[in-house]
Amino acid sequence: MTDHELFDLGDFPLQHGGLLSGARLVYRTYGRLSSDKSNAIVFPTWFAGTHESNEWLIGEGKALDTERYFVIVPNLFGNGLSSSPSNTPPPHDRARFPRTTMYDNVRAQHRLLTERFGITRLALVVGASMGAGQAYQWAVSHPAMVERVAPIVGSSHTSPHNQVFLEGIRAALTADAAFDGGDYAEPPRTGLRAFARVYAGWGLSQAFYWQRLHEQLGFATLEDFLTGFWEDGFADWDANDLLAMIWTWQHADVGQTPGFGGDTRAALASITAKTLLMPSEKDLYFPPEDEEWSAAHIPGAELRVIPGVWGHLAGGGDDPQAAAFIGAALREFLGDA
Amino acid sequence: MTDHELFDLGDFPLQHGGLLSGARLVYRTYGRLSSDKSNAIVFPTWFAGTHESNEWLIGEGKALDTERYFVIVPNLFGNGLSSSPSNTPPPHDRARFPRTTMYDNVRAQHRLLTERFGITRLALVVGASMGAGQAYQWAVSHPAMVERVAPIVGSSHTSPHNQVFLEGIRAALTADAAFDGGDYAEPPRTGLRAFARVYAGWGLSQAFYWQRLHEQLGFATLEDFLTGFWEDGFADWDANDLLAMIWTWQHADVGQTPGFGGDTRAALASITAKTLLMPSEKDLYFPPEDEEWSAAHIPGAELRVIPGVWGHLAGGGDDPQAAAFIGAALREFLGDA
Repeated sequence: MTDHELFDLGDFPLQHGGLLSGARLVYRTYGRLSSDKSNAIVFPTWFAGTHESNEWLIGEGKALDTERYFVIVPNLFGNGLSSSPSNTPPPHDRARFPRTTMYDNVRAQHRLLTERFGITRLALVVGASMGAGQAYQWAVSHPAMVERVAPIVGSSHTSPHNQVFLEGIRAALTADAAFDGGDYAEPPRTGLRAFARVYAGWGLSQAFYWQRLHEQLGFATLEDFLTGFWEDGFADWDANDLLAMIWTWQHADVGQTPGFGGDTRAALASITAKTLLMPSEKDLYFPPEDEEWSAAHIPGAELRVIPGVWGHLAGGGDDPQAAAFIGAALREFLGDA
Repeated sequence: MTDHELFDLGDFPLQHGGLLSGARLVYRTYGRLSSDKSNAIVFPTWFAGTHESNEWLIGEGKALDTERYFVIVPNLFGNGLSSSPSNTPPPHDRARFPRTTMYDNVRAQHRLLTERFGITRLALVVGASMGAGQAYQWAVSHPAMVERVAPIVGSSHTSPHNQVFLEGIRAALTADAAFDGGDYAEPPRTGLRAFARVYAGWGLSQAFYWQRLHEQLGFATLEDFLTGFWEDGFADWDANDLLAMIWTWQHADVGQTPGFGGDTRAALASITAKTLLMPSEKDLYFPPEDEEWSAAHIPGAELRVIPGVWGHLAGGGDDPQAAAFIGAALREFLGDA
């Protein structure tokens, strides 16, 4: 394994207008590209995640088996590694960072794959949550290139309720006057804590808490879990970076791909990749019902609902049973079972 | 109908210690108490509601028919009418307002009914959301007095997930430095707006938003709904009052009734009233599963899930179909069908 790498995108034009000057895509690869370049898998990152967040599925003997596959994990714009409010120089720093879409992310990733690696065919694009949104976008933007696509705990377009959820966490974060329109000298810690505490109710299901599974994770009380897991989990994230990713999330819709004129159904119908959708049974902001809708519009799509009470976090590898379910499904989907 | 009335509780001792000095219960009655005092119904208020919020179910020809019943609607401590942070003089004003429980509220209501009206038997105690919590508490505190109890979209004890939801809205509200520990000169408007925007995701279901039912309510966009319905709906509430009610909500548990030593199951098992539980199918913070649990511990309890996509708000009368469902169920429960 190599450490993470940087791909220079130069002045990168954006879907919503303007340029991202000196744009960069940070990525990491795992395994080796075969001589015929037929074994590549793209696995984009999720909200408030990095390539390291994806490593639970990658490695020898894992579903994305590095003995067999060449796995590329590109980091989402805004995540603090790829171009982000926190690492872009003025005049596009902080809240002045330009708006980036799922489409922009995938276009940048496509340049990385084709220009740096000469890859023209992908065995699989897989991703969880915002990574699922990028996977959908890959299947719509590059149908001839994507053999299989597996969006996990995500959606093809951000639903109205999901928008409202995101408005809530955004409002909580920015209610802290220390946020100062993004020009904070010190992190808006009160706002970040409020953001995390609101998120805590959404990330897992009612049943997870009813069964007090936080105790099994080593947190004796709910308050310990809220502080030790949720607040600490977001404490080191840059507020502007989080807000940039939220903007991308809120504007996710494969129907906005050029050529589809906002028609999400038509974009889904254009997918030619073998498609496996894996929502989580009790996901509160990407509920399985929404993925049933997407599955109905993608030719031949298969829907497999991840069972259990871990809600959205079922897609993140923390629940051993959900992780095993996802791993087995992907092996079968790849023909490796 | 009379206007609202005031019952002076004097110096009212509280379950968690201390006195509420000069405590007052504000209530309104509807209909006439029969000469044998057998037709009384108690219908306590919900979070951020007043007696006016309950009037959709009360009146001639409605389920709580004022031609037949004498309906008493006592206002919850903290709601700005009964004793609250906003109307209590120093030294117990604002954030210094003492902690009041569901048990305290019911004890105060019991004094009102017995001392002012000489009522010793209740045909029904019904309530929605925090009103349901008070209804449960009535059935546990005064089993010999309550003939029927009908908790709607509520619970017998606040579940761990519900606690986390409440921590989220509390954190959003108090992230605004203008809150100033409760000693604000002007309302913490940014915090109240954040509170409302977080609440918007919880109050209705994913499917409500997916079906864009906010448009049927006259809001052209999601943002219009977030501001015009949710922000405006909470804008005039006093922040300390909201937090006092949240404290009561978070500490709701019939198992904390004196004599039960924290055993919620034993408290539920002690209920002798005929019991009808009406959770809402897609309620995100009082999910039907929790009420199935309560129903399993109350002798002879009946569970009727309100169908539809209105989530928690199904219990509030805004959805005509849910309102009709609740009305019909209550008529049947009262033997008036």
